[in-house]
Amino acid sequence: MKKVSFQGEKGAYSEAAAVHYWHEKVLPVPQKTFKDVFISVHEASCDFGIIPIENSLTGSIHQNIDLLLEFELSVVGEIILRIHHHLMALKGVRLSQIRRVFSHPQALQQCSNFLENWSGVEAVPMYDTAGSAAYVLEHGLKDCAAIASLQASQDFGLNVLKKGVENNQQNYTRFLIISKTPDMPEKSGKTSIVFSTKDIPGALFKAISVFALRDINLLKIESRPLRSGPWKYWFYLDFEGRMNQEPCLNAIQHLGEITSFLKVLGSYPAGKIID
Amino acid sequence: MKKVSFQGEKGAYSEAAAVHYWHEKVLPVPQKTFKDVFISVHEASCDFGIIPIENSLTGSIHQNIDLLLEFELSVVGEIILRIHHHLMALKGVRLSQIRRVFSHPQALQQCSNFLENWSGVEAVPMYDTAGSAAYVLEHGLKDCAAIASLQASQDFGLNVLKKGVENNQQNYTRFLIISKTPDMPEKSGKTSIVFSTKDIPGALFKAISVFALRDINLLKIESRPLRSGPWKYWFYLDFEGRMNQEPCLNAIQHLGEITSFLKVLGSYPAGKIID
Repeated sequence: MKKVSFQGEKGAYSEAAAVHYWHEKVLPVPQKTFKDVFISVHEASCDFGIIPIENSLTGSIHQNIDLLLEFELSVVGEIILRIHHHLMALKGVRLSQIRRVFSHPQALQQCSNFLENWSGVEAVPMYDTAGSAAYVLEHGLKDCAAIASLQASQDFGLNVLKKGVENNQQNYTRFLIISKTPDMPEKSGKTSIVFSTKDIPGALFKAISVFALRDINLLKIESRPLRSGPWKYWFYLDFEGRMNQEPCLNAIQHLGEITSFLKVLGSYPAGKIID
Repeated sequence: MKKVSFQGEKGAYSEAAAVHYWHEKVLPVPQKTFKDVFISVHEASCDFGIIPIENSLTGSIHQNIDLLLEFELSVVGEIILRIHHHLMALKGVRLSQIRRVFSHPQALQQCSNFLENWSGVEAVPMYDTAGSAAYVLEHGLKDCAAIASLQASQDFGLNVLKKGVENNQQNYTRFLIISKTPDMPEKSGKTSIVFSTKDIPGALFKAISVFALRDINLLKIESRPLRSGPWKYWFYLDFEGRMNQEPCLNAIQHLGEITSFLKVLGSYPAGKIID
């Protein structure tokens, strides 16, 4: 069985994404940090890694874009997961017994409407969502609940007291699959690249023209401060097409003429949305 | 004295940014949420608001871009603050007495190298950095420290035990100043806009061409999923120039012809970097 590396504890949203992507036919391997995910794939102790790259509410996870630049790994897939936050407790515990709710501060904030209307209950920040579920189980806390993923409730045998307690329903996270070996989609696909432009007038305009002149659609663009100086930028860009197609190859060659740095992260099939 | 609204507790990084921007000649007014900051300026209970819009490590704060779209307020200034995390405790407490360190999980993570090398000390997540400093003071905890801003140590009378315990020195946050009344810089300046393109081939290329054709430099661009559907995009863009200059006015008029939505957030002087 293939091993898939993810950041977080058992029950994290990344684990849920892996289970959906491979239809449970993989062994998810938890890692402490995102960098550990990249290292485990680079050193081949895991076959794949799965990393969040973008959330529809909070934006890009730049740390992972940086790691895609640092490591020589390829993006070979993506999956988009709707983030549902569920309230869960030990089996047999009723809603009226709850006095404290644990979760990551961001998850607590994303469920603030629900929590603020629940008098006599204290929200307590913890390191992560899945870790909060584990904590309730390990300490046998009968007056406490956790806010975490459905995956966490299954992994830790907790009972979901209330489903979907998040304020905003439009909460999606896009995950990328990384591998040591590039994989080329046979039919349609998309490609992710990173580049920095030369310091010349209209540099970004020229960079984007290499795609427009070949009728290649752009799917995402983002400027990002360069690490070498706070407000120097490079660009992260996704386009429609794959690197074994003539127009895409030509566009990238053309782009190379007008950029000071260019890296193709990989071509892969456009991912499913898991609702 | 002008009142300036910011999100967080007394001692938050946003308060520090406000104090630097107005050279202490303002009264900072804490608010619970970013939305409360916008409401306080909209309802004129405060003269200005100050909001973080972008961090050099973690990317754009999309929630605030959304609020700039939701409210009819103008961006009138910016300031860029280097984020230093300091370890602080009650006066008279020595480093060797510390057993627990409180802070926001993101700040704890940003100081992980320092914390992991400190054996016998537990890192405890809290809602925010300044709140951790307040907690140490209020409970008179002699074996605990907080990781927070210099501003927090001053506001709560804590002693800085160790300066700059962050892993990465390239940690900058860019703040925007918002007001009910637009303000036009007299000399050089920059302008922030948000737009969504019509669903036509090469739409972004055409949008960017309105600036390139007039030799207007772009400073930042970011695509962002539209709320109406998870992976439909709008664009946030900063360019060099101000809305009382002919080429900028023409570029915006031209852009209006090829976009389905366009909002000018404001023109303002480029901000200082506070190191």
